[in-house]
Amino acid sequence: MPTSLENYDIVVVGAGPVGLLLSVCLARWGYKIKHIDNRPTPTATGRADGIQPRSLDLLRNMNLKRQIMAHEPAKVYEVAFWDPTSDGNGIHRTGTWASCPKFIDARYPFTTLLHQGHIENVFIEDLKKNGARIQRPWTITGLKNDGKNETYPVEVNLEHVDTREKETVRSRYLFSGEGARSFVREKLGIKIHHKDPIAHVWGVMDGVVRTDFPDIKMKCTIHSDHGSIMIIPREDNMVRLYIQIASSTDKDWNPLKKATAEEVQMSAKRILAPYHIEWDRVEWFSVYPIGQGIAEKYTLDHRIFMGGDACHTHSPKAGQGMNTAFLDAVNLAWKIHHVESGFASRSILTTYESERKLIAENLLTFDAKYAALFSQRKPSAGEVNLASQSSPTGPAQNPNPGGPPNEFVETFKASCELTSGYGISYPPNIHNHSAQHPAHSPLFHPPTRALTPGRILPPSTVTRVADANTTHLEQAIPLNGAFRIYIFAGHPPRTRPALSDFCAHLSQPGSFLTAFLHPDLSSIPHTEPHTPHSRFYTFATIFAAPHAHLGLRVPELLPPVLARYRTHVYADDVWDARVPDATASAHRKMGLDEEKGGVVVVRPDGYVACVVGLVEGGGTVEALNAYFGAFAIRALGRGKAGEARL
Amino acid sequence: MPTSLENYDIVVVGAGPVGLLLSVCLARWGYKIKHIDNRPTPTATGRADGIQPRSLDLLRNMNLKRQIMAHEPAKVYEVAFWDPTSDGNGIHRTGTWASCPKFIDARYPFTTLLHQGHIENVFIEDLKKNGARIQRPWTITGLKNDGKNETYPVEVNLEHVDTREKETVRSRYLFSGEGARSFVREKLGIKIHHKDPIAHVWGVMDGVVRTDFPDIKMKCTIHSDHGSIMIIPREDNMVRLYIQIASSTDKDWNPLKKATAEEVQMSAKRILAPYHIEWDRVEWFSVYPIGQGIAEKYTLDHRIFMGGDACHTHSPKAGQGMNTAFLDAVNLAWKIHHVESGFASRSILTTYESERKLIAENLLTFDAKYAALFSQRKPSAGEVNLASQSSPTGPAQNPNPGGPPNEFVETFKASCELTSGYGISYPPNIHNHSAQHPAHSPLFHPPTRALTPGRILPPSTVTRVADANTTHLEQAIPLNGAFRIYIFAGHPPRTRPALSDFCAHLSQPGSFLTAFLHPDLSSIPHTEPHTPHSRFYTFATIFAAPHAHLGLRVPELLPPVLARYRTHVYADDVWDARVPDATASAHRKMGLDEEKGGVVVVRPDGYVACVVGLVEGGGTVEALNAYFGAFAIRALGRGKAGEARL
Repeated sequence: MPTSLENYDIVVVGAGPVGLLLSVCLARWGYKIKHIDNRPTPTATGRADGIQPRSLDLLRNMNLKRQIMAHEPAKVYEVAFWDPTSDGNGIHRTGTWASCPKFIDARYPFTTLLHQGHIENVFIEDLKKNGARIQRPWTITGLKNDGKNETYPVEVNLEHVDTREKETVRSRYLFSGEGARSFVREKLGIKIHHKDPIAHVWGVMDGVVRTDFPDIKMKCTIHSDHGSIMIIPREDNMVRLYIQIASSTDKDWNPLKKATAEEVQMSAKRILAPYHIEWDRVEWFSVYPIGQGIAEKYTLDHRIFMGGDACHTHSPKAGQGMNTAFLDAVNLAWKIHHVESGFASRSILTTYESERKLIAENLLTFDAKYAALFSQRKPSAGEVNLASQSSPTGPAQNPNPGGPPNEFVETFKASCELTSGYGISYPPNIHNHSAQHPAHSPLFHPPTRALTPGRILPPSTVTRVADANTTHLEQAIPLNGAFRIYIFAGHPPRTRPALSDFCAHLSQPGSFLTAFLHPDLSSIPHTEPHTPHSRFYTFATIFAAPHAHLGLRVPELLPPVLARYRTHVYADDVWDARVPDATASAHRKMGLDEEKGGVVVVRPDGYVACVVGLVEGGGTVEALNAYFGAFAIRALGRGKAGEARL
Repeated sequence: MPTSLENYDIVVVGAGPVGLLLSVCLARWGYKIKHIDNRPTPTATGRADGIQPRSLDLLRNMNLKRQIMAHEPAKVYEVAFWDPTSDGNGIHRTGTWASCPKFIDARYPFTTLLHQGHIENVFIEDLKKNGARIQRPWTITGLKNDGKNETYPVEVNLEHVDTREKETVRSRYLFSGEGARSFVREKLGIKIHHKDPIAHVWGVMDGVVRTDFPDIKMKCTIHSDHGSIMIIPREDNMVRLYIQIASSTDKDWNPLKKATAEEVQMSAKRILAPYHIEWDRVEWFSVYPIGQGIAEKYTLDHRIFMGGDACHTHSPKAGQGMNTAFLDAVNLAWKIHHVESGFASRSILTTYESERKLIAENLLTFDAKYAALFSQRKPSAGEVNLASQSSPTGPAQNPNPGGPPNEFVETFKASCELTSGYGISYPPNIHNHSAQHPAHSPLFHPPTRALTPGRILPPSTVTRVADANTTHLEQAIPLNGAFRIYIFAGHPPRTRPALSDFCAHLSQPGSFLTAFLHPDLSSIPHTEPHTPHSRFYTFATIFAAPHAHLGLRVPELLPPVLARYRTHVYADDVWDARVPDATASAHRKMGLDEEKGGVVVVRPDGYVACVVGLVEGGGTVEALNAYFGAFAIRALGRGKAGEARL
């Protein structure tokens, strides 16, 4: 038994978005990582470039947004549609749509366009700060989960691309972020399923152009009698053009069809006529075939995982590749963390595939449905307007009151939710509470339009009591691997007994908190704001009261357990244009009673886990014990799990 | 004549905020700089740390805000006041105030607290990008404006602090940013005038504390029976304490009075009782005497200038030192630039002192007045509330309708404007148009509450037509040394003839634009967004129309001259809560007619220069020719200044 091999917590293959973000998370949380990439340097040109609104939230939550924005990316607020004129003499604009319309409550209602290499470098710099680096150019040549070492069951063979130097290591986990051509997937014999049998050859060109085409700084979808093109603005005055070179529906379909840069430019000129376009320079040019595809499995043994393009490929039109990769990475990262840090049972790892594969399937299905709907007829201006309204979908928005919902409007709204990233809805499972969840209590709230387990926590703005700072509540707790427990505490006089009982039961032996306390609480600095008691939970308390009234009353209102999170005590006293008549807009946006409040548990990745009533007695903590106990490695609740108390 | 000496455009002495920001501007605009500092390294600890809201606007306009915010500074939204309890047993909070109340229309309504060294390093990194560096540790030993070289009239003697190596250079300008003890000021024999004869000895301590004082994350002014203290939160969990150690009103006044760190800590403990405070660590501690002082002159010859603490000192309480320094630097920078680049006559340099010394005097006067008002009586809660309202000052806000204005409310409002930085009002002069300005035309608008020459351009949010990006109009043009000419173009059908006439007259020989065209227009890249015609002007056009209606009509609505600034064409179609019933909120906020518009000229540093009606015929351009002609080196207007046309 080769016990002399070096052991790692995880071996990550491929330093694209999915592999890098997984490593960034795990490196921050203290894991030992071997990360290789078969390219000698990070991506220099081309590849993906679209960061959707929800991904920008995620990057901000990881404190990486500022570094991304420092590159001055292009921002796409709207998409313009161009079609042939009826006289056959060129093209005209037929409409523009917001890429993230007002009905979506987004902090950053735009898509950010930036060369993938810049994004990778932001991640690589963050890895460096945590002592991790990418080993280049190395490739993977073999893998097996041979179980010869219980702790490090996976053996991985690595090789230097040029020198052929070899290295064999053992690891708890192996992750393939290799892209569409994954050695790991091949080796595991996992098949790609093609949802939509239609494949395309795309030409893509980044460059600086001179043109009188008026929408060159917009994202455009242009159909002409000479073909179709998609325009995407980029940083540094660049523009990306996607041109469909061939389709498997063509009579002479050839997936290996090629085109020169000059041919692509000539096509673009014909499509854009009567407007003119010339190139100052071409930064990148590529022609490649691509079809919708999805891996049948994301893992076989819950030790060797895959994510990103290794699992799902689709046309570049939706701009979803990198964003889906980001969420694959974060989803897997916190689950591995919770298993390896002794919090959750190993079975939670099954939810990586069940959650992320569903999202990829939805994306692919939707893509096809949306395209089909569009090919039937054009939406009217009224429908577009209706679909872009700021109110949530509902009967009042139906243009035909009392009649059936307008399919176009519904599809458009769903499309915007999907492409902005806010449409993700993870299904009920051990993390996303539902009536089928093993934890039962009359205090669990059923899903509401405002808060549904498996969907993102909506944004809300509050005032931090300690320093009167205006705070984006959904960003207040960083992506630190902990569950976020938001105690919406309603009116202080009303909820004071409930809060007191909550803290009392939280402090008892066997509660979800005391069962997972830091082993040495006295070693935690008093300045630790997020996880002073346990690395698995951060608590925030939000009162429906003006912050000036709360400032001095925190010790009186909050028992010591919650008062320890003093920088996470907030006043729900900021007016919000989306709920203009609410006196406590965050409570209202969560669908909670402004007097009685409620407890919202959010997963480490920002998705709602469960919502529980805040009541006097032990019910609230018991419900949470039941929720966490369903996947924690220790039984939770009265009389369970140890002696520790707070 | 020592022609062999190396020549510089400017020698800057002192690498604190004022010197650095001056160099940053001039280095960006291509000047050759010798910048020395007598310290071996940048500020490591202590010193100034408050960036007011207006300064944050300025740093953003220079694309430096992101780097500042990357250090995660503390943000002060409110100030808390604490006073002795009536029973003599300790202190209690008597109120809190917004540091930048809602009646001020600020993008960033908070003060940013960050160690001066971080701020200096942001500037130093920017200098490096432009090929400039700080030469350390060097000091100045001599200077004379001997005129021996007409172009480089100033001789400066420099010396290495340690090795005594000497260097003599010649320069167009010399700038002292040496701080309160300025060798240059001394050498020129310029006296410091003490406005308020009262001086103080201050103790200041930065560190990490443990305390149960509830407002430790707020800015606090605490009066107790044991003395007074000011608390200021800092980055990295630090807090700064200012304690007044002695005052010249004391019987035993000694400006050299000292105190140990332990003594200051003991004082703090007594003042904060019954709350407790302990120090985890002390990062910096200093005791120093300071009084209000202002230099009689900022320059004698308009070749050797001073700025920052070399010109004005005051108590640290107002947190104005660094902010006043920033504005000194920017004010001087663009004026030197306009003289040396052949645009403005040398006489404009007189306005540096007349503008900036007035601001320093106001600051000092105000400080005293405000303190005096406070010592008389405490404001009532109603007065504080009133003073913080979001509506502008006016009769309706008077708590005593029909009666005299409430002095406290007026003073409070003026105080907030001053400390936030939005209160600056430069007097009428050659740059700030008034009835006394040499340029006369019935088209010049008189000052209004919305727009007053010499005051900052108010913020407004618009949509950029080229890419539908939501844009902060006041930030749309970077601090590039150019005048910003905002053409508020009202309703397109209505103003089309006026715009056409404006461009026609702008294109004529002798217009303010054609008289200062780039010498080789063909060398300007087509991607240049800001100064494609002249480095002295950037044009922006704002229509009162929805952007979707404008996108394709820019070539039709805007003659080629203005259309060349295609990324500076905006739609005034974003709703603004401050003018909720306006259909064109930016026009409304500027006090301009939403149909007819008007032209707003803004100085390179963001202050309004003049406002001119937008009319058919040549009147608008003629008024601007007269305005610019008053300080340009060439006569402007019909039949003047050359042949160039556009």
